[in-house]
Amino acid sequence: MTITHPPKPGTALWLYAHPRRGSLNEHLFRSGTEALSARYEVMTSDLHAQEFDPVLSNRDLGEPTDKPGNIVELAGEAYSRGQLPADVREEQAKLAAAELLIVQFPLWWYGPPAILKGWFDRVLTNGFAYGDLDPELGVPRRYGDGGLIGRRALIVVTAGEDARSIGPRGISGDLESLLFPLIHGTLWYVGIETLDLHVVYDADGLDPAAVDLEAQRLQDRLRTIDTEPVRRFRRLRDGDYQETRALRGDLLPGRTDLGIHLADHG
Amino acid sequence: MTITHPPKPGTALWLYAHPRRGSLNEHLFRSGTEALSARYEVMTSDLHAQEFDPVLSNRDLGEPTDKPGNIVELAGEAYSRGQLPADVREEQAKLAAAELLIVQFPLWWYGPPAILKGWFDRVLTNGFAYGDLDPELGVPRRYGDGGLIGRRALIVVTAGEDARSIGPRGISGDLESLLFPLIHGTLWYVGIETLDLHVVYDADGLDPAAVDLEAQRLQDRLRTIDTEPVRRFRRLRDGDYQETRALRGDLLPGRTDLGIHLADHG
Repeated sequence: MTITHPPKPGTALWLYAHPRRGSLNEHLFRSGTEALSARYEVMTSDLHAQEFDPVLSNRDLGEPTDKPGNIVELAGEAYSRGQLPADVREEQAKLAAAELLIVQFPLWWYGPPAILKGWFDRVLTNGFAYGDLDPELGVPRRYGDGGLIGRRALIVVTAGEDARSIGPRGISGDLESLLFPLIHGTLWYVGIETLDLHVVYDADGLDPAAVDLEAQRLQDRLRTIDTEPVRRFRRLRDGDYQETRALRGDLLPGRTDLGIHLADHG
Repeated sequence: MTITHPPKPGTALWLYAHPRRGSLNEHLFRSGTEALSARYEVMTSDLHAQEFDPVLSNRDLGEPTDKPGNIVELAGEAYSRGQLPADVREEQAKLAAAELLIVQFPLWWYGPPAILKGWFDRVLTNGFAYGDLDPELGVPRRYGDGGLIGRRALIVVTAGEDARSIGPRGISGDLESLLFPLIHGTLWYVGIETLDLHVVYDADGLDPAAVDLEAQRLQDRLRTIDTEPVRRFRRLRDGDYQETRALRGDLLPGRTDLGIHLADHG
């Protein structure tokens, strides 16, 4: 059985994870959803407003909750039985319908806030987002395949640091690598292709005029994202990974950086 | 004013983030804390048992909560006024006392579970873990300096994948890079040095005998961690970063992988 959730054309989900009214992030959220609504039916998941619980726990497992076993597998079984909690089922329904996903958050400790991390922990269950085998490879469909193929995502992230500190040789690590677990390990894993990051640097020090400019820059970008190229990672199915595990020795020999997983090396 | 929390010698904090009784992780937690107790006074933070709330929100800001401003800065002000919530203050007190930190978690979506990510979001506040200026550099003390220097940490992580899939050229990215936001961006940022990762691979498929072996392997390692060398990153104070932002052009020219931040390049 193939896990598949064909998205509804013209539908978008804006996943938003900032707690503060009046923040730069709220400004971007309001103006961004408004701009996107001109061309998409926009659903929102305002995680703080919803008081979304990000903790994957026994409450996610249906009955009985004391069954022994791995929690990730048990959550998948609860999905199959229709026993996931209502809040998770609602988020899955929104994600299943959306062909475009916007993921917006402030960079905290060089990653997504807990409330957003936990959205992925709880919503992308086995059976819903991944878990079936590739009939030819005999391994799970993942990395460019999976339950949520046919979707694109834009990550909108605000950072307190400047472009150099989180650039390619920046002291804090480059943002593309810092977010690899989200871009590649989460979204690409379940089949969702991503666009170039939309980053607001020096986000803590912007005056009102600069905030308006950033809102405008985001709106401008949203107007043309349908024609933007996606980031091209190697697909598991392409055969670039030996035994589906590690990059073949003849490809980019000696390199160990995360960039080796991009497919654009000619 | 220098932020400083001299640890209490012989004191350890075991930070544990797995929800399931009877799990491999619980087994490692029980046997690990037992082994460590032979030589340390071991405090524990069992985040699921404590029902730790990982969501940084207005509740972390003291009174008044509707004050405008950046939430991370406002949480720092609440710390200075002694107005952080009681659960955060308890965790800070434990961390301030510990000279050894164990961070144990299952790898979910290639990062820490939300409940652990949120522990860092809420506990490592401005004013407590970082925030004062280096008097010579004129920039915040961080990366090898900061409020929590004088501590070492061991990360114990269980992963469903094998060593090749999350190894140096693994399809999922190498674990060292996947955890860079924790190892470097969080722990090293506030001055905490880390030991080599303690990884349990193929963690979902271990039979009881293999679980016992893994518990033994962890206990064996804990017996000698006092003499283990730490991972050596470049310190901000070493002058390797131009304008304290990006690695100097004459150091490892052309390289952009996260390994450039290690200090062991000779």
